[in-house]
Amino acid sequence: MRLAVIGAGAVGRSVVELAGEYGHEVVAVADSSSAVVADGTGGPDGHAGVDPEAVVARKSERGIVGDDDPADALAADYDALVEATPTTLGDAEPGFSHVTTALERDRHAVLANKGPVAERFGDLRAAVDDSDGEIRFEATVGGAIPAVSTVEDIEPGHVTAVRGVLNGTANFILTRMAAEGLDYDHVLAEAQDLGVAEADPSFDVDGTDAALKCVILANVLSFGAADAPADAREFTLDDADVSGIRDVPGSALRLAAEDGRTVRLIGEATGETVRVAPRLVPENGTLAVSGTQNIVQIETSHAGRLNISGRGAGGPETASAVLGDVGRLE
Amino acid sequence: MRLAVIGAGAVGRSVVELAGEYGHEVVAVADSSSAVVADGTGGPDGHAGVDPEAVVARKSERGIVGDDDPADALAADYDALVEATPTTLGDAEPGFSHVTTALERDRHAVLANKGPVAERFGDLRAAVDDSDGEIRFEATVGGAIPAVSTVEDIEPGHVTAVRGVLNGTANFILTRMAAEGLDYDHVLAEAQDLGVAEADPSFDVDGTDAALKCVILANVLSFGAADAPADAREFTLDDADVSGIRDVPGSALRLAAEDGRTVRLIGEATGETVRVAPRLVPENGTLAVSGTQNIVQIETSHAGRLNISGRGAGGPETASAVLGDVGRLE
Repeated sequence: MRLAVIGAGAVGRSVVELAGEYGHEVVAVADSSSAVVADGTGGPDGHAGVDPEAVVARKSERGIVGDDDPADALAADYDALVEATPTTLGDAEPGFSHVTTALERDRHAVLANKGPVAERFGDLRAAVDDSDGEIRFEATVGGAIPAVSTVEDIEPGHVTAVRGVLNGTANFILTRMAAEGLDYDHVLAEAQDLGVAEADPSFDVDGTDAALKCVILANVLSFGAADAPADAREFTLDDADVSGIRDVPGSALRLAAEDGRTVRLIGEATGETVRVAPRLVPENGTLAVSGTQNIVQIETSHAGRLNISGRGAGGPETASAVLGDVGRLE
Repeated sequence: MRLAVIGAGAVGRSVVELAGEYGHEVVAVADSSSAVVADGTGGPDGHAGVDPEAVVARKSERGIVGDDDPADALAADYDALVEATPTTLGDAEPGFSHVTTALERDRHAVLANKGPVAERFGDLRAAVDDSDGEIRFEATVGGAIPAVSTVEDIEPGHVTAVRGVLNGTANFILTRMAAEGLDYDHVLAEAQDLGVAEADPSFDVDGTDAALKCVILANVLSFGAADAPADAREFTLDDADVSGIRDVPGSALRLAAEDGRTVRLIGEATGETVRVAPRLVPENGTLAVSGTQNIVQIETSHAGRLNISGRGAGGPETASAVLGDVGRLE
């Protein structure tokens, strides 16, 4: 497939670098201020894509991906648009418009950006209904973990709940607090030094990021893979009951450890509720993944509980989820 | 889809019982000596399927599924044949012929029977190449665990190895030996009393069952999801290096426990080798699943390691994998 990659952060750049290995071709790349669009000449089939190495080099050396205008990338001749700009809340712009532009042109869209699927799922479905294009968004939940696809394959009507550890930064902090007996502030500073936590860590430690992922899962469970039931309920971040980890004292982790338990930031989605909060879990249990690992537990009607753990973030990890989605569109 | 279910053991019966919930219709069921084929009347659309409850009741009360001939079920007007007869080695008959009969009629086949995919993968692919039908076989590996689909979605070329605990009976025995300090023979007898182990447990405890699953995974890795490379190698059970758990002494488990480890029967497949053997693993590590649980670890080129654990056997669990495959064929 011919891909237009919108967003040139870690995920967008990895999609550009890996697409060829998966048999796809990147014909356009844009960041917020620049773009490069392949001119369609130079390849044996007249469809030469952009040069991945040159794009990545320009971005790191000059801060731009090319000399074209971002609007040119949206207008390029692609089969699927990859929306990898930063997640925004509320109107989820500009990601939402990037996706609907593709759909209006009857092209597919694959999202790594959580905003449109978490905040405007109903609007997005309406745009899909009017289009020959489809949307996929595996990369929005749990990085390399195939949470959305697995729920789709089981079929949402046979999944009663999905829960798990969905934020690597919060999990790293809780893991280190328990292992070293340190307090939140100390471990946060360490995580910031290591680049695991951002300078402003609120999005991760207050549970917002995990909640967005659970909202997306709740939308999948509510609307289903096939036609949405008439009474399908749309979820947004406002529907989520969210507590973060800032107020978890080191003493709580020490007390938990005496009882063979530890604390994890657990998010849970059903077709009716979304909740994120620190919870006690068995210290050696399935949910107690370490460091930046993520885990998703899927409760099914007929096949018991399925656990999937792996890397929940990272450029190549998330890009491989994007490219898996592209493969499913073929 | 209209399904013909061949085989009326625990898996076949569960497929018959659950198909309606997944939006499919069972139009024929056969066991080795009897069959029932829907007459196509009675339903609003002229496509009434068989009555699932009546089939299951006849099987348990009279030992037959109906008054038709098994050959009639193979000749019925179905979209996909579900091959759920017992796994046989070597020529993998009669399962192999059931599947190729469907493919010759340009129908799909979904296998729960490991024989044809483990012992005659090359022949099976040749039959698929000549057909408009496709085959799927998620249910042959790890019950409810989506091992094959996940490898397909990641794309086999980006998976370097798949390993895991793939036999619940052997795992139950090793778990009990470690927990209770008992020897193999004692725990085997207990497992037989509980119905977890068969009267002749060789297939499970000698590693054959786990090896067949690994052979199937090796074939998927070797041939890939898309067109097979010209040098793709076909694997059969003869290519597997297999040791079982009969000779694991209780003392080995006690020594392992002193070092924070335990023993698991681990199977591993790459595109080049298949190996099954008891191996030391960390006692609280990811591979040390308990009881009849299974786990599959997928090593990827770009997304690290993915772990998927769940119920590796059981009628409804395996039937849900079959019905997930049917959904993917649509």
